[in-house]
Amino acid sequence: MSITITFHPSGKTIEVSEGETVLDAAARAGEAINSECGGLGTCGKCVVKVVAGTPPPLSASERELLSADRISDGFRLACELLPTSDLKVLVLNAAQPRAATLSEETARSAGTDPAVRNYHIELEAPGESYVAADRERLLEGLATTHGLEGLSVSYPLLKRLPHTLRDAGWNVTAAVRHGNEVIGLVPGSPRPIYGVAFDLGTTTIAGYLVELEKGETVAAESILNPQARYGGDVIARISHALDNPDGAVSLKAAVIGALNGLSGRLAKTAGGVAVKEDIVEAMIVGNTTMHHLALGLPVGGLGVYPFTPALVCPMEVPAAEVGLHINECGYVVTLPLAGGFVGADTVAALLAVDPEEKGGSSLLIDIGTNGEIVVAHEGRLLCASCATGPAFEGAKISHGMRAGIGAIEKVMIDPETLEASYRVIGSPGWSVPSGFTGALGLCGSGVVDAVAGMYLAGIIDVRGAFVPDSVSPRVRTDESGQPEYVIAWGQETATGHDITITQEDVRAVQLAKAALSAGVKVLLNEAGLERTDRVYLAGAFGNFIDPKSAAVIGLLPGWATERAVSAGNAAGEGARAALLSVGSREKAKEMSARMRHIELSVHPEFQGLFLESINFPLPGAFS
Amino acid sequence: MSITITFHPSGKTIEVSEGETVLDAAARAGEAINSECGGLGTCGKCVVKVVAGTPPPLSASERELLSADRISDGFRLACELLPTSDLKVLVLNAAQPRAATLSEETARSAGTDPAVRNYHIELEAPGESYVAADRERLLEGLATTHGLEGLSVSYPLLKRLPHTLRDAGWNVTAAVRHGNEVIGLVPGSPRPIYGVAFDLGTTTIAGYLVELEKGETVAAESILNPQARYGGDVIARISHALDNPDGAVSLKAAVIGALNGLSGRLAKTAGGVAVKEDIVEAMIVGNTTMHHLALGLPVGGLGVYPFTPALVCPMEVPAAEVGLHINECGYVVTLPLAGGFVGADTVAALLAVDPEEKGGSSLLIDIGTNGEIVVAHEGRLLCASCATGPAFEGAKISHGMRAGIGAIEKVMIDPETLEASYRVIGSPGWSVPSGFTGALGLCGSGVVDAVAGMYLAGIIDVRGAFVPDSVSPRVRTDESGQPEYVIAWGQETATGHDITITQEDVRAVQLAKAALSAGVKVLLNEAGLERTDRVYLAGAFGNFIDPKSAAVIGLLPGWATERAVSAGNAAGEGARAALLSVGSREKAKEMSARMRHIELSVHPEFQGLFLESINFPLPGAFS
Repeated sequence: MSITITFHPSGKTIEVSEGETVLDAAARAGEAINSECGGLGTCGKCVVKVVAGTPPPLSASERELLSADRISDGFRLACELLPTSDLKVLVLNAAQPRAATLSEETARSAGTDPAVRNYHIELEAPGESYVAADRERLLEGLATTHGLEGLSVSYPLLKRLPHTLRDAGWNVTAAVRHGNEVIGLVPGSPRPIYGVAFDLGTTTIAGYLVELEKGETVAAESILNPQARYGGDVIARISHALDNPDGAVSLKAAVIGALNGLSGRLAKTAGGVAVKEDIVEAMIVGNTTMHHLALGLPVGGLGVYPFTPALVCPMEVPAAEVGLHINECGYVVTLPLAGGFVGADTVAALLAVDPEEKGGSSLLIDIGTNGEIVVAHEGRLLCASCATGPAFEGAKISHGMRAGIGAIEKVMIDPETLEASYRVIGSPGWSVPSGFTGALGLCGSGVVDAVAGMYLAGIIDVRGAFVPDSVSPRVRTDESGQPEYVIAWGQETATGHDITITQEDVRAVQLAKAALSAGVKVLLNEAGLERTDRVYLAGAFGNFIDPKSAAVIGLLPGWATERAVSAGNAAGEGARAALLSVGSREKAKEMSARMRHIELSVHPEFQGLFLESINFPLPGAFS
Repeated sequence: MSITITFHPSGKTIEVSEGETVLDAAARAGEAINSECGGLGTCGKCVVKVVAGTPPPLSASERELLSADRISDGFRLACELLPTSDLKVLVLNAAQPRAATLSEETARSAGTDPAVRNYHIELEAPGESYVAADRERLLEGLATTHGLEGLSVSYPLLKRLPHTLRDAGWNVTAAVRHGNEVIGLVPGSPRPIYGVAFDLGTTTIAGYLVELEKGETVAAESILNPQARYGGDVIARISHALDNPDGAVSLKAAVIGALNGLSGRLAKTAGGVAVKEDIVEAMIVGNTTMHHLALGLPVGGLGVYPFTPALVCPMEVPAAEVGLHINECGYVVTLPLAGGFVGADTVAALLAVDPEEKGGSSLLIDIGTNGEIVVAHEGRLLCASCATGPAFEGAKISHGMRAGIGAIEKVMIDPETLEASYRVIGSPGWSVPSGFTGALGLCGSGVVDAVAGMYLAGIIDVRGAFVPDSVSPRVRTDESGQPEYVIAWGQETATGHDITITQEDVRAVQLAKAALSAGVKVLLNEAGLERTDRVYLAGAFGNFIDPKSAAVIGLLPGWATERAVSAGNAAGEGARAALLSVGSREKAKEMSARMRHIELSVHPEFQGLFLESINFPLPGAFS
């Protein structure tokens, strides 16, 4: 008996396997549903509404996490729902992150210097007057027509070369990589060749499909990293790889499967792109852990001090050996890593931002699931990774969630009335009192806004503690006696529950911002600087977190707000730049060689600076 | 129910699959049984004697090809015998060719310049004072200790590098290829690394296991090419590849399977060699067809004029991509081809013979299943392939067989009495009248001796026709009225049948020798030479065919016998030399670039010279 699930509003349909949850089926279907806990049934974020069919009885988790109203409306948790017959479900919490949609700016044509280029040639057919072997005939043609000398031909291509040449009537276009290896051969005149750039984040994978010779990005999409089910941060992933016999294998399979799926969807979006023929190169950037897990490199060295990567060099590996199903002669290319946990994504961000171009000193902060910091000054590049945890991505926060439909992304708190208003992704404008907003939770930028607003409104004090004498009904204690502040009342939200910031949430934000703040201070001290001329904010920071709120809570130094420049999704931009340009790859290599990685966890100043940074800044420090 | 076959005298036992013949099971067991027709049940050569167990009833082929006496003695044909219960069989016609046994000369240490060398290093473990990544630590160690700069590390090795380094306590030996790629890493001090050289003949595959740094050959063995079942010569193999949907795939699988089996047996013979770790390189030489089929290159271009190979360049391909199960980071290396059907085996033979070293002019003739000829003169290297057919290997001859136990390898005919005496491989001394010799048939050298003897004794005339008035009982007509000469009487032989040379056999020899002779003349004419200063005889010629007999029948020009030098198994020697020396590979490349291939089938002089060469030389021309 086959059971199918249809997802709305996309209309995607997929057959489910035995024991497969709706969340798992959704991932296979490319229907990304937000799931904070990775499908463990604890976060309650992956709500779907059953609109047709008969679902099985509720699980214990669902009874605990969904309100009675929601349950009677047909709401279920995708991670708990094991279909026993055909179902149609409405996805309420789509995980589509905002970063990698194809904006006009993203699609703009860049100056290109791609590793792979097309060369058209018309060859003489074998005959008495010219009896060269096929490969040698091809190479002589490329030499005569295009001046390309000393080429090799990829082995998989050699195995079909005689057929391709004859079928094409000796009129072919060769794709030549680095001017020295023929990796593609198609009949007739050139047709576009493509590359795909992946920014492989701990939580989110962004993919870009790029036409190599024009430099045009023809499709972009983000998905959640399916490794999330094995742990939310890099430490959890490393533990999973080390503690389970096939842990590393599962992690690699999960991410490579996701990259293959993403490639397919990008090609479909662009239209007319054949993944296994037209995509000839894949550029992967990611932090050290994501990079290693995707490439099947052991992460054991990262599990113990001094946190040793298997390698830091750039790689060029046949895509087939990595398991990526692009052109069979295509390559997976990675940018170099900086060292320790500071990976190719940070190098890519540096490449995109190019902080040294303007001279002077610069600070780059890239906040993803971890925070990476680089200080550039007089030819030196100091870098560090901060274990901020995922608070700034909305994770490990009572009502936190990834940025996606239903996430509260901005919060304002009136210091007089202590009333909150907020904006929800997917809903227009600011909230009005008691109006339904469909809010599901708070994403990172909302959390930062909320905590900053609470501090400015005097709801919490300089040490982060709730001030006992607040008079608003929004400030209250929960059933366990913990103080909390209500951002959205239950009648406004999609879950029917109040969305709050608790004392514990404030503490999580304090620890995260203290780690980043202390990291910045260590790097500035090492560079002999008090501040830098410019501050580049990348990742969640660059895109969404309000620099003013960040300065209020001390996530960003007060002096930095005036100098802050949004660098957007810098790692993804750098990956695209490197995909499009051999010169950029060289530059990345040169920069990475100069990068000095500072391991904060053993740095003598870090612990003291961290403790000093836990309090919020005194008023005046941030304005 | 499992059925096992035990082979004697080796004692090897193997479980047979359903529908598997004893011949197939023998091949899997590494028990090479001579089979002329490749298992089609037509040649009657693959006789075995059932010594225990109950065999199934005789097949029609067996009833036709085995005499009643042989049948009552328990003789069967291995290719027709489908066991239905456990059997023990005595192998009577072992196919072990003589060429690749490990002679003292073969085992001698050569000057080596291998592509892969060992480098021992002791590394500092990661710690606060030195925090490099694993790969970079390894490469820094190799640079510091051995001055090796700019190395890459093979991807499969990278995937276990962190484990290997830590398990070895940072004391390791790296195998470095071409001074630029680390392809092996073992704990502790260097242990020997090996290469395997294969001379991939149409009929026979010779393998040599060589310790790379000492240059010592530690094992050598030959097996029959299992592709023989798909046709005896290159044209039949090409047809099989082109006419069957999975023809090329089966041919590749057959030969690669044989090479893997041979590697395993060589390692076992040598003792203490782990194929998948210690063998880091495989050198393959072979004619164009064998080369292409083994590497999975299409042979379609070879099927039509102008007989175009897919490529002629030397190749270096990861062994895993070819399907060879040596070290997972090891490479398959091939020598360049000359052009048309003149392949890497001829280039290898040239490398071994080095005919240009002594100046003057040289002729190299290498007879395998085809005949290849090279004329070297004043920096020119002219080459051609002659479709001699396999007569000189004993195939397509009424009582022909491969050289192996039971083959008549030498024949003398008394011109007075017309009596024959002969020598049998595996039996001591010359035959005595009516004495049992265990003869099974005639191998190539025996055929040439026999025809030469028949011509000198006046049994056949200058045109190859039997002389009608011969008075010996050995000269007779068979049941179809065809004249024949009896070399061995039935009571002397292992089959109980007379072994004869028929009129048709003489014709086959004439056609074969005319092709080779005409080829030599074309090449000499092209070179503007009447004769050469030296003549090198390689392959079957070099090893076994008597140059005097060859001159008598016109297989070799009369002037050549005095100048002839045996070059032994030159292709195999050249393969070993190239395996051991990067310089030899460069030399092969340089020579192959100078080789001018002449396609005899369309050469204006060839047909006329061929017809002129069909008669035997007049007495005086060869002495």
